[in-house]
Amino acid sequence: HTHVDCQDDEDTFKILVATDIHLGYLEKDPVRGNDTFVTFNEILDHAQKNEVDFVLLGGDLFHENKPSRKTVHSCLESLRKYCMGDRPVQFEILSDQAVNFHYSKFPWVNYQDENLNISIPVFSIHGNHDDPTGADALCALDILSCAGLVNHFGRSTSVEKIAISPILLRKGRTKIALYGLGSIPDERLYRMFVNKQVTMLRPKEDEDSWFNLFVIHQNRSKHGATNYIPEQFLDDFIDLVVWGHEHECKITPFQNEQQRFYISQPGSSVVTSLSPGEAVKKHIGLLHVKGKKMKMEKIALETVRTFHIEDVVLADHPDLFNPDNPNVTQAIQAFCMEKVELMLDNAERERLGNPHQPEKPIIRLRVDYAGGFEPFSIYRFSQKYMHRVANPKDIIHFFRHRGQKEKKDIDLNFGKLVSRPTEAMTLRVEDLVKQYFQTAEKKVQLSLLTERGMGEAVQEFVDKEEKDAIEELVKFQLEKTQRFLKERRTEAEEEKIDEEVIFFLQLICALCKE
Amino acid sequence: HTHVDCQDDEDTFKILVATDIHLGYLEKDPVRGNDTFVTFNEILDHAQKNEVDFVLLGGDLFHENKPSRKTVHSCLESLRKYCMGDRPVQFEILSDQAVNFHYSKFPWVNYQDENLNISIPVFSIHGNHDDPTGADALCALDILSCAGLVNHFGRSTSVEKIAISPILLRKGRTKIALYGLGSIPDERLYRMFVNKQVTMLRPKEDEDSWFNLFVIHQNRSKHGATNYIPEQFLDDFIDLVVWGHEHECKITPFQNEQQRFYISQPGSSVVTSLSPGEAVKKHIGLLHVKGKKMKMEKIALETVRTFHIEDVVLADHPDLFNPDNPNVTQAIQAFCMEKVELMLDNAERERLGNPHQPEKPIIRLRVDYAGGFEPFSIYRFSQKYMHRVANPKDIIHFFRHRGQKEKKDIDLNFGKLVSRPTEAMTLRVEDLVKQYFQTAEKKVQLSLLTERGMGEAVQEFVDKEEKDAIEELVKFQLEKTQRFLKERRTEAEEEKIDEEVIFFLQLICALCKE
Repeated sequence: HTHVDCQDDEDTFKILVATDIHLGYLEKDPVRGNDTFVTFNEILDHAQKNEVDFVLLGGDLFHENKPSRKTVHSCLESLRKYCMGDRPVQFEILSDQAVNFHYSKFPWVNYQDENLNISIPVFSIHGNHDDPTGADALCALDILSCAGLVNHFGRSTSVEKIAISPILLRKGRTKIALYGLGSIPDERLYRMFVNKQVTMLRPKEDEDSWFNLFVIHQNRSKHGATNYIPEQFLDDFIDLVVWGHEHECKITPFQNEQQRFYISQPGSSVVTSLSPGEAVKKHIGLLHVKGKKMKMEKIALETVRTFHIEDVVLADHPDLFNPDNPNVTQAIQAFCMEKVELMLDNAERERLGNPHQPEKPIIRLRVDYAGGFEPFSIYRFSQKYMHRVANPKDIIHFFRHRGQKEKKDIDLNFGKLVSRPTEAMTLRVEDLVKQYFQTAEKKVQLSLLTERGMGEAVQEFVDKEEKDAIEELVKFQLEKTQRFLKERRTEAEEEKIDEEVIFFLQLICALCKE
Repeated sequence: HTHVDCQDDEDTFKILVATDIHLGYLEKDPVRGNDTFVTFNEILDHAQKNEVDFVLLGGDLFHENKPSRKTVHSCLESLRKYCMGDRPVQFEILSDQAVNFHYSKFPWVNYQDENLNISIPVFSIHGNHDDPTGADALCALDILSCAGLVNHFGRSTSVEKIAISPILLRKGRTKIALYGLGSIPDERLYRMFVNKQVTMLRPKEDEDSWFNLFVIHQNRSKHGATNYIPEQFLDDFIDLVVWGHEHECKITPFQNEQQRFYISQPGSSVVTSLSPGEAVKKHIGLLHVKGKKMKMEKIALETVRTFHIEDVVLADHPDLFNPDNPNVTQAIQAFCMEKVELMLDNAERERLGNPHQPEKPIIRLRVDYAGGFEPFSIYRFSQKYMHRVANPKDIIHFFRHRGQKEKKDIDLNFGKLVSRPTEAMTLRVEDLVKQYFQTAEKKVQLSLLTERGMGEAVQEFVDKEEKDAIEELVKFQLEKTQRFLKERRTEAEEEKIDEEVIFFLQLICALCKE
């Protein structure tokens, strides 16, 4: 199998491939609130126009573990609009569906349900954002699957051992074995791979006649020793891996050098972090499979808000900026403004060719201020771009390059955090939370209330907006405050607990607003 | 039209009538958690077995405004299981569906959708528990309606004026004009009625040939001067009113004396408050309509957990209890235990005839302890019934009859509330919250942070589990605590704020657990 062109015919599967659609991301933002819904419609519209056999999603269809009513509603609306209809589905399923969809209340593929008229079946694994949680171990995809609009597959129930049973599809003479593995914490899955506890089952007959397609949602790039899944862990009988979770679009299949398989990383269809990978043009794929041959056609997404990112290193411009000049901050600010204007010009030029492109771009200028410089007020800077940029509050990001960073006491002081509001720094709530718990853990030697540890609970809350996490947070602060009040206190300690309570309340406020 | 028996034929509508199913009520309770789901299945099973033309629901299908994933999932599962299938729907819709379902993304009745195979259409108005909220003004029913499993109707968009346009249905020679009005705050609707701003539109042709059926979800019994809807406000051309919201089953149509119409109050299918009305046997209705004749057949629900309530007035037993006897509390406790045993015996006898009946009943003994008696520890009492009663924690409710109540300072002290945990009293969180804000408002003369007032925000949270309400709560406490810390404080004041913060944290804990 290679990327030989294959003429579409009755033996050719056409599969629309997309991932990380993150429905509901920033849904309350007055400018960007509808971006994910608009792009999901664009994706399904491509599926319909291209008359694909099915849609394959690589996880994180939803941004929140418990998506809002609006998000679920909008998603159901799109699926019912685009994926139902009279066009007959042209492929059949040969595997035991009761195995493929064993955790579903309706354990069969939706297009074979006599009560539903499905024209485009959607197959999806879950991601880390929309993974199964709670006593019932349901995830948001299960709502869609229960409504008959999505086929949720690739879910493993054991935490020690995984045997992936493929969905076997046939269209004419082409046979696809579709393997899926919904998101699992990387370190756990890494361990399972190392311990040979991950098995991919293969069809008994004509083993080599199948096109083996595997969809996975894990870290692909190394985030620590075991906090990712090395490509070579995957079985080499696989033909193509569709890799979700990583947001940078690298959709053109790229062959792994050790193994025979190709990897396609579609990337997200929305910018969720202001990092360079997200600035790469967003695409989805139209995968053609005929026999063992495949072709991945890239489809550029037109509705995605463009993102422009640039870096500035102040120390690289000794001619322009002298830290001893009392007006250096104004000079830096003017320089940054010029940069942003240029980025906006580029964004506008790009947009003109595309009527579906949202008007305001996402802009980020990262300013390395190492070398004795001071950051200027981001607040005032933001005000200037309120009507031209989609993300006015975080256009500028000040940082100091590790190598050049002055050695300072990095033990974060609680009071400092409280007295210095986020205005002057682009500290994100996540960072605040992390710093708070790192500091708190060191200083107070807290016996953590939960097994998982408080920091993780908060991080989870930040990720997933879980009410349970609020409860844990509150319990934590409650017990701590009570402990303080019971003890005899010095005035300094009293002030400390007062500050903590205030910080804590600010924290919940910020979390609630997230 | 009267209750003359009519033989079912091709001119007879058969309608299953139910209301206040409260899906998800106490869903985390290990004993009662599945009650609402089980009963919903029983209701739909009756609909299927009786081959009804449609199901008519009177609101509060969901207990929570934002029902949990499990609840939505379970509801979709039941609807897909019971309401889809090949049995053809035998009636047609004559009205303009774009008007009837104007706020829906799919503004037509579900059984006419070419992509859905519906055998039992469900028509529902929303209740006060599952009413539309948020910027998008969606409610939980809209998720079901978007999935094509429920026809949400009777929604008015204006807050000043309502014109109710009926869904016009015809089966053979019988024509029904189905009017619906989703829940609206009683006082607002009362005002609109008084100001003649509520109009019920009538079909132009053969006005008198229609059976006029109206479904409403409001207070029927008087909760204050304008906090209910007097029956005589309703137009007298109506034939039958199906009245939701009131939980007591009074399903047999009862004629209003001033007007011509009949009222059927199906009542809830689950006990959500431990009051006598909820102890009445639960039913749903099978409504037959032929021409202008109707018959309401009662169907007793078999899966509903039975509820037994009794009152004891200690002062009525001077022979048994003397407040000056040092052992009087033990005597009272023994007496209550005897009562509860009798109630359990009755419950068990009742259950034996019914295999679908849940094993543990709900029991409440209300004890009027006026006359110098003291309540005993409910905690220990509860322990004894842990394995025999579905609601061990609130079997006993102590109260003092208004007339006999000793005059005491009823200004609730904050510290008292904190120092006396809920163990000794059956104070509910809602009460605590109310008391807290009543006290706080009096003492601190708070300028409320929101237009609606904090108390209401909390009440709303209690009712609806809204994250926004937590935010408001936290903001409130934050501002208050900051204000206190800025001012010079006396030691007493300091203690007070400490206590308040603790109470506040306990409160959020309790709310999160609700």
